[in-house]
Amino acid sequence: MKKIGVICKPQKERAQAVVHELTGWLEARGSTVYMDRETAALNDLSSSHERQDLPFLVEMLIVLGGDGTMLSVARHVDGLQVPILGVNLGSLGFLTEVTLTELYPALEEVLKGKYEIEERLTLVAHIHRSGKRVAEYVVLNDVVINKGALARIVELEAYVDGKYVTSYRADGLIISTPTGSTAYSLAAGGPIIHPTLPALLVNPICPFTISNRALVLPESARIEVVLTTPDEDVHVTLDGQAGFPLQHCDVVEVKKSPHTLRLIKAHQKDFFHLLRSKLGWGARPGERSAEVDP
Amino acid sequence: MKKIGVICKPQKERAQAVVHELTGWLEARGSTVYMDRETAALNDLSSSHERQDLPFLVEMLIVLGGDGTMLSVARHVDGLQVPILGVNLGSLGFLTEVTLTELYPALEEVLKGKYEIEERLTLVAHIHRSGKRVAEYVVLNDVVINKGALARIVELEAYVDGKYVTSYRADGLIISTPTGSTAYSLAAGGPIIHPTLPALLVNPICPFTISNRALVLPESARIEVVLTTPDEDVHVTLDGQAGFPLQHCDVVEVKKSPHTLRLIKAHQKDFFHLLRSKLGWGARPGERSAEVDP
Amino acid sequence: MKKIGVICKPQKERAQAVVHELTGWLEARGSTVYMDRETAALNDLSSSHERQDLPFLVEMLIVLGGDGTMLSVARHVDGLQVPILGVNLGSLGFLTEVTLTELYPALEEVLKGKYEIEERLTLVAHIHRSGKRVAEYVVLNDVVINKGALARIVELEAYVDGKYVTSYRADGLIISTPTGSTAYSLAAGGPIIHPTLPALLVNPICPFTISNRALVLPESARIEVVLTTPDEDVHVTLDGQAGFPLQHCDVVEVKKSPHTLRLIKAHQKDFFHLLRSKLGWGARPGERSAEVDP
Amino acid sequence: MKKIGVICKPQKERAQAVVHELTGWLEARGSTVYMDRETAALNDLSSSHERQDLPFLVEMLIVLGGDGTMLSVARHVDGLQVPILGVNLGSLGFLTEVTLTELYPALEEVLKGKYEIEERLTLVAHIHRSGKRVAEYVVLNDVVINKGALARIVELEAYVDGKYVTSYRADGLIISTPTGSTAYSLAAGGPIIHPTLPALLVNPICPFTISNRALVLPESARIEVVLTTPDEDVHVTLDGQAGFPLQHCDVVEVKKSPHTLRLIKAHQKDFFHLLRSKLGWGARPGERSAEVDP
Repeated sequence: MKKIGVICKPQKERAQAVVHELTGWLEARGSTVYMDRETAALNDLSSSHERQDLPFLVEMLIVLGGDGTMLSVARHVDGLQVPILGVNLGSLGFLTEVTLTELYPALEEVLKGKYEIEERLTLVAHIHRSGKRVAEYVVLNDVVINKGALARIVELEAYVDGKYVTSYRADGLIISTPTGSTAYSLAAGGPIIHPTLPALLVNPICPFTISNRALVLPESARIEVVLTTPDEDVHVTLDGQAGFPLQHCDVVEVKKSPHTLRLIKAHQKDFFHLLRSKLGWGARPGERSAEVDP
Repeated sequence: MKKIGVICKPQKERAQAVVHELTGWLEARGSTVYMDRETAALNDLSSSHERQDLPFLVEMLIVLGGDGTMLSVARHVDGLQVPILGVNLGSLGFLTEVTLTELYPALEEVLKGKYEIEERLTLVAHIHRSGKRVAEYVVLNDVVINKGALARIVELEAYVDGKYVTSYRADGLIISTPTGSTAYSLAAGGPIIHPTLPALLVNPICPFTISNRALVLPESARIEVVLTTPDEDVHVTLDGQAGFPLQHCDVVEVKKSPHTLRLIKAHQKDFFHLLRSKLGWGARPGERSAEVDP
Repeated sequence: MKKIGVICKPQKERAQAVVHELTGWLEARGSTVYMDRETAALNDLSSSHERQDLPFLVEMLIVLGGDGTMLSVARHVDGLQVPILGVNLGSLGFLTEVTLTELYPALEEVLKGKYEIEERLTLVAHIHRSGKRVAEYVVLNDVVINKGALARIVELEAYVDGKYVTSYRADGLIISTPTGSTAYSLAAGGPIIHPTLPALLVNPICPFTISNRALVLPESARIEVVLTTPDEDVHVTLDGQAGFPLQHCDVVEVKKSPHTLRLIKAHQKDFFHLLRSKLGWGARPGERSAEVDP
Repeated sequence: MKKIGVICKPQKERAQAVVHELTGWLEARGSTVYMDRETAALNDLSSSHERQDLPFLVEMLIVLGGDGTMLSVARHVDGLQVPILGVNLGSLGFLTEVTLTELYPALEEVLKGKYEIEERLTLVAHIHRSGKRVAEYVVLNDVVINKGALARIVELEAYVDGKYVTSYRADGLIISTPTGSTAYSLAAGGPIIHPTLPALLVNPICPFTISNRALVLPESARIEVVLTTPDEDVHVTLDGQAGFPLQHCDVVEVKKSPHTLRLIKAHQKDFFHLLRSKLGWGARPGERSAEVDP
């Protein structure tokens, strides 16, 4: 891989030093480095690339930041085949499993072709109003319908493949990929879904019908949610990054996107390792020290 | 009891007929009926009483509506001794246990003096900004700190009696009375607290530290919550009815109010009966039919 | 379909009358009815068929009872293609969706060939001791490792496809099919998995590490659980029907069985209808009356 | 305090060395040390004291072990006023807050009289069979009714002060003190109750009615639980240490014991500190290192 894109979240501590070193390391191995404007600015370089153009120019993307940085990049690579290596500048992340100390050993392997690609399901959300499509989004984690702080309970009628599921009276509803199951949905009491399972997750937020539970559906499911509460402050948020205000009777339709996100797995950390490390699950004697991010 | 106040939620179906009949029934028994303007309008009466003045004029308040109507009345009787009888115009409520078919038998008993008073703990919330108290509220159910739909996770530092508890990273935090434990806190996964227990409940909403749990504290606890997240849309809501926007470093201080709310218990429904009926808990054979609101 | 097996749970009220009527109805339409001994006894018939032989003799099985009856039959049809129609003699069941009033209309449709087959994933459990396989079971719902009433917490080391997951300190562990997700696992806080999803569910029972959560895995997952607590009373139970005592260091290996169970879907009740009806979820106005089993 | 009892869990690593050193330290300060037989054996001393006699002989008890050791000692001091200092030989415990490195500084304070007593509510359980009391126990944590590994769901009818609560269909039922709320009940999804709150906790284990929730009751509540399932393997366990087999129609009656357990609080760790440390809750920057037990 000769053309490598680098995107860094500039606000992160150590960002400048890391980008500088990484660029030198890659160029010393004969790669050409492409950056978006924000990352280039860290190196006092001017760059003519907008972030959304980068995926078209490179064979691999290295994303330095946290899971939030990965989510924002994911929105730009939808439909492309560019594999992404996530590097965490802080603590371990579910999408950014490579820590700084592991970065160069991992890259050595990747440049030798020793890596696997893990394809992650993404979702496409369409918002319909009075029969017209008024918005479209692609997400890697979740589509969340959420009431505002002052709004009372919202009522949401949910359908799967045209079949009525139930009317949720709740703070909101999360429709998540397996990747998103360890993000907001987990805080809302949801299960952990292995990232390779072809499934969608529908999870109500603080439902007043307390027998409501998270629902795991086949990835082929087409989910429609109708906002039946009038006159309340309700938004759809997409990967926690973009938002769209909903009106009474709007329909949020969510289904699997035709495209996946391609994550580079360059090392030994499997999904269960991440769970143990991130969630404080029991480990075998002696393991924990190895898990802590230096 | 000769002076009886009647407050009705006018939007409720059947409200006009019920108020008309109730007024006649009470007057036939020698009582004088006082209404607030909205209730009087249902009977085509003009009334010179503002809702907040009513508690000063009467010996008992009859509130017709749902639990929400009771909560709004509760805000006006703080500090007074007026007992309240809650009558539900729809399905059974936790605060409005008397159904329409039970209304007159219940009132017969009450007028004979055959009733008990159940005192319910209320909370007083003070909001402090830069060392000044900027708002004060009294609630019967809960003080809720909640993020807006577009806001990311908020961070809230909690203290009890000046001792640090933890820093919640969550959608928000509920501080509830036992009465409020069956309201929003229940939807957020909280326990059910018997209404006579001298306790407060602190319950995080969708905490990212998934080992966080609801915390039941002595009623003497003074709870302080500091909003440590800057620049997010966060509000305090009071009994789900009033709202106040929070700023970075604001402190929400909650403690037991010196006053209780006095509910009239005029019938046989104990708290467990309400739980079985409202939450669909298992009942003894033959009981369920009796529970259903005719 | 000319050869039809009928299996009935004899203890159920109305069992005798139902079997008598059903037999007559089927024979009037030219079918030959096969019964196991227990069911035949209800009709004062002698029958030469053991329950386990029945699936080899017929083209369809009608099972009358509850979900427990279906589970016990499921153990005998593993590996055969015989489709099963579940009829509930009491309230609605997840596996016995046809009520008595729906039985004959449903059978009319089935005999005309108007029905769908829903294939349900089953699990095979092997128990290994000192390197030898000491037991094998096939289940439709779940494999449960559970401590006795007097035992203290057990420790279970879990592996998926040879990869270490975590060491659960808990009352036990449920390994469930999607079908089983609405049975015991639901009581243990698990999610609801659509029965057609190719997934397995691993759900700890009362884990002391309270950040443990249910884990949804691809159906290809091979799950191994090692009992690392010595000297405690621990059993594996299979669909809640059979039990096997575990010893220190025993390995319970669970994976997808090569065979599915084939359920006949003869009517309009989809999975979400069952959830609303069984779990008291919110329904659309007017729907509930139709849901109640007459 | 001149007469000090020392009880140590002999199986714990370092037990012998610790007891030897502690005895010397106390005697050097003029105290007389009393031990039970097991603890004395660690020091190659013969001791004429049975564990149950020790509380009658001393002014203070030092218990070295874990929370389980404390629970077993608690059963012997019921009704006596002897204050107890819990010292943890392993990691931090909820009942054994003093670590080995804190032991001597803490004891210095205690011998100077600088300590507080925290009184912990205990429960008395009576088991009634055919109108006769067949067993009686006192517990500090919890009374647990639990089914055996092979038993199916049990049905338990619960009453509070003679009022019917509900019929639980579950694996069992936990009746806990505030002290016990951070033990087994927490694993069963219960809330955390501040140890000084005058409350009892009733928490079902894996209830099939998934709208069941933990119930927090006034300490004056008299709880009766009737086993209505016949012919199943069901036991009552007391603080996880003793067990009693239940029969159909047995009644387990639980109420507050007239006696409290008196814990010595000799240091700065408040209850919230223990929660943060034991449950991995968010701490303030810089705090965690101080929490870890050296």
